[in-house]
Amino acid sequence: MKDDVLKQQAHAAIQKKLGYAFRDISLLRQALTHRSCHTKHNERFEFVGDSILNYTVARMLFDAFPKLTEGELSRLRASLVNEGVLAEMAAEMNVGDGLYLGAGELKSGGFRRPSILADAMEAMFAAVSFDADFNTAEKVVRHLFADRVRRADFQNQAKDAKTALQEALQARRFALPKYRIEEQIGHANDSMFVISCDLGELGFVCRAKGTSRKAAEQEAAKEALKWLEEKLPLKKKKK
Amino acid sequence: MKDDVLKQQAHAAIQKKLGYAFRDISLLRQALTHRSCHTKHNERFEFVGDSILNYTVARMLFDAFPKLTEGELSRLRASLVNEGVLAEMAAEMNVGDGLYLGAGELKSGGFRRPSILADAMEAMFAAVSFDADFNTAEKVVRHLFADRVRRADFQNQAKDAKTALQEALQARRFALPKYRIEEQIGHANDSMFVISCDLGELGFVCRAKGTSRKAAEQEAAKEALKWLEEKLPLKKKKK
Repeated sequence: MKDDVLKQQAHAAIQKKLGYAFRDISLLRQALTHRSCHTKHNERFEFVGDSILNYTVARMLFDAFPKLTEGELSRLRASLVNEGVLAEMAAEMNVGDGLYLGAGELKSGGFRRPSILADAMEAMFAAVSFDADFNTAEKVVRHLFADRVRRADFQNQAKDAKTALQEALQARRFALPKYRIEEQIGHANDSMFVISCDLGELGFVCRAKGTSRKAAEQEAAKEALKWLEEKLPLKKKKK
Repeated sequence: MKDDVLKQQAHAAIQKKLGYAFRDISLLRQALTHRSCHTKHNERFEFVGDSILNYTVARMLFDAFPKLTEGELSRLRASLVNEGVLAEMAAEMNVGDGLYLGAGELKSGGFRRPSILADAMEAMFAAVSFDADFNTAEKVVRHLFADRVRRADFQNQAKDAKTALQEALQARRFALPKYRIEEQIGHANDSMFVISCDLGELGFVCRAKGTSRKAAEQEAAKEALKWLEEKLPLKKKKK
């Protein structure tokens, strides 16, 4: 592989955006090499980079949101660490211009394909850790994700468990949940509802209490969502 | 929480096995606290510890097996980083003796429950990183996994893609694949087979070439396995 001037410029720009200058530029080049182009491609790098990314964002969220539960942190991370976000970042950094693609991928616009861009991002995190060390790679990830973690509006994502459950079921192509009042104790200001949430074909039913029907439904939905995400986790990213 | 002598001895023994002495022992105690016992429990720690573990073993395997593909590395890591292995490690370290459990969990033998033990292991990795830093936590994980990575017999796990595919389909409760000769070119020592591998209800069919029927089937199985693991990844551990 010989780089033309445009490729060199793209690599310079990418390093600037990463906030890291490679000592061994061949590591950056391998991180940007798709398997369609060369046998020394970026897939093994991606394996390592993925875990650097996951740790770093986990730790950032752990520190930034001391009151969130593990499940909430996991969900929040999944909203930040996924193909879509990584591809978006890659686009902002013009990573596509620096990629090495095979002829077929070049022709079919591989330099814009989200999965290829996201993989290259992760591979670059690994490349930094190889060129320097883990802590430097962590710094690069922190730098890139700082704004997104700051903006992470968990309230917004967590405010409505019923909506979240509905979306989670739809994402997995299952029918919507059925809520039913199982018990109602007392009246008016002093009442207590027991609501069941039934996931139908999935064979899961749970019950929850609340001082209003709505509150009990939210609680039941939360529990059902927890079960669903445990039993049928969505893949984070193509692997 | 007040520790009796037995608990203190258990914690001392655990630190010895970890190869790390806590400056702030309350971090170790929180890592060993199940949610059934106290509101300051280990679940958030586990979220961070899980990713320290995943990175460290990823990097160990990346270095130890330079010829493995990303998919093979992922599979290998999944065989090392899972509830079973972590619980086994925890048992070797008598982590159960150091746990803080609620009354119900105590009575039902929670100190032996694999999920509780595995979670505590991961939480301890995070606790080390909080007490010292990431690199120290990485060292602890490397120390604990060194033998297992050395013994990781990938040959054994990867030697037969057809078997691996069969097992992967069974784990997901799908029917076995169907292989068919689609083409056979030439004869005897100079022949070429094209084999299709059909995953039936999953709607996936691929083809592969080989100089023997067996070789072509292996290639097709490899591709089908890759597809399957990409589309329907198995969860690594309860989350």
